[in-house]
Amino acid sequence: METAVVLLSGGLDSATCLAMARAEGFRCHTIAFDYGQRTRSELQAAERVSAALGAESHRVIELGMGGIGGSALTDHAIDVPENGGEGIPVTYVPARNTVFLSLALGLAEVVGADAIFIGVNAVDYSGYPDCRPEFIDAFQHLAGLATKAGVEGHPVRISTPLMALSKAEIIRRGTELGLDYSLTVSCYQADAEGRACGRCDSCRLRREGFEQALIKDPTIYQS
Amino acid sequence: METAVVLLSGGLDSATCLAMARAEGFRCHTIAFDYGQRTRSELQAAERVSAALGAESHRVIELGMGGIGGSALTDHAIDVPENGGEGIPVTYVPARNTVFLSLALGLAEVVGADAIFIGVNAVDYSGYPDCRPEFIDAFQHLAGLATKAGVEGHPVRISTPLMALSKAEIIRRGTELGLDYSLTVSCYQADAEGRACGRCDSCRLRREGFEQALIKDPTIYQS
Repeated sequence: METAVVLLSGGLDSATCLAMARAEGFRCHTIAFDYGQRTRSELQAAERVSAALGAESHRVIELGMGGIGGSALTDHAIDVPENGGEGIPVTYVPARNTVFLSLALGLAEVVGADAIFIGVNAVDYSGYPDCRPEFIDAFQHLAGLATKAGVEGHPVRISTPLMALSKAEIIRRGTELGLDYSLTVSCYQADAEGRACGRCDSCRLRREGFEQALIKDPTIYQS
Repeated sequence: METAVVLLSGGLDSATCLAMARAEGFRCHTIAFDYGQRTRSELQAAERVSAALGAESHRVIELGMGGIGGSALTDHAIDVPENGGEGIPVTYVPARNTVFLSLALGLAEVVGADAIFIGVNAVDYSGYPDCRPEFIDAFQHLAGLATKAGVEGHPVRISTPLMALSKAEIIRRGTELGLDYSLTVSCYQADAEGRACGRCDSCRLRREGFEQALIKDPTIYQS
């Protein structure tokens, strides 16, 4: 049986990614990051999802990205946008996926993982540069050079099973695998109980996904 | 005037790297990591060195790498070796330079830096895989794809001015630039006052460097 490290944010995509890794037969170690994000209920969602899907272990790694700043998700002086817009949005956290994959790579070495699963997606991808296939390919190459396992000829594989799926396809896949999406929180500004605002870009993409998948949206919205 | 992010550990190499960046005329933002390392006095040394060399800002980023484990430097159950040895040593922190460079990349985006300086060295490099030129080249490629600046055609440069220098050459260069090495702490198990053990691999490499450079070693050792 192969072992995987799975990055969990508490949102819909990474939960589906974990469900897919489990369905492929991987023993999974999940990792989430406490990086000063606006929405604390994300971290509780990640822990619930990890337990519900039978992961071997769950870790929350503290990461002082607030000391770096530059994003609406970690800097409370910047407002979260509610109307889409062009280009790379202010919710982009500088180098976030590079940082997250790097820490997952460290954990992969420690637990002897064969793969790292990350729920990035190039279809409904919000315009972040570090969600594209060429970014993942570059990280895969780096991983082979950066680590003891890589040097010894067993580089970890970076697995991105959601890369080419639409949000609706992701939701259909997860639903087929029995994933309960009411466990997840996608909203950039969810309240302490994990209830979604219904207005931010992340809420909009999620709601449209359920509509297009013709699956009832279990998201709990703020009244 | 160009701007740089400089990774500072508190040790001899990164201090020299900062001195070289300053001598090249860069405005420097320094960044250090509180990652559960054994030696807390490293972080105080980094702050001293940043101030002494006139950096624009200094940040200490918290990083819960202890939650990942797997190294003598972050896991107190593993002893620090005192006799060299073959292969990748237990002081190797899994994926450390990948993690550090990723966070420096995030800061580089926020401050609009043209370069990231990192004091890695392939000569006296302790056998860590993430100190080799091919690792740095792979990270440079990744940086061009991972960030807003990269996407917009201005990828940050990864500068490694110590890469081809011996420890003695590094010490000579820093001394020429007026760097006071008594500010720095290299020891893996320095005490609270920053006094070195004189026995670990890092102490051994440092002492041999001063001997070969024919420069008096200002290191304060534990009696």
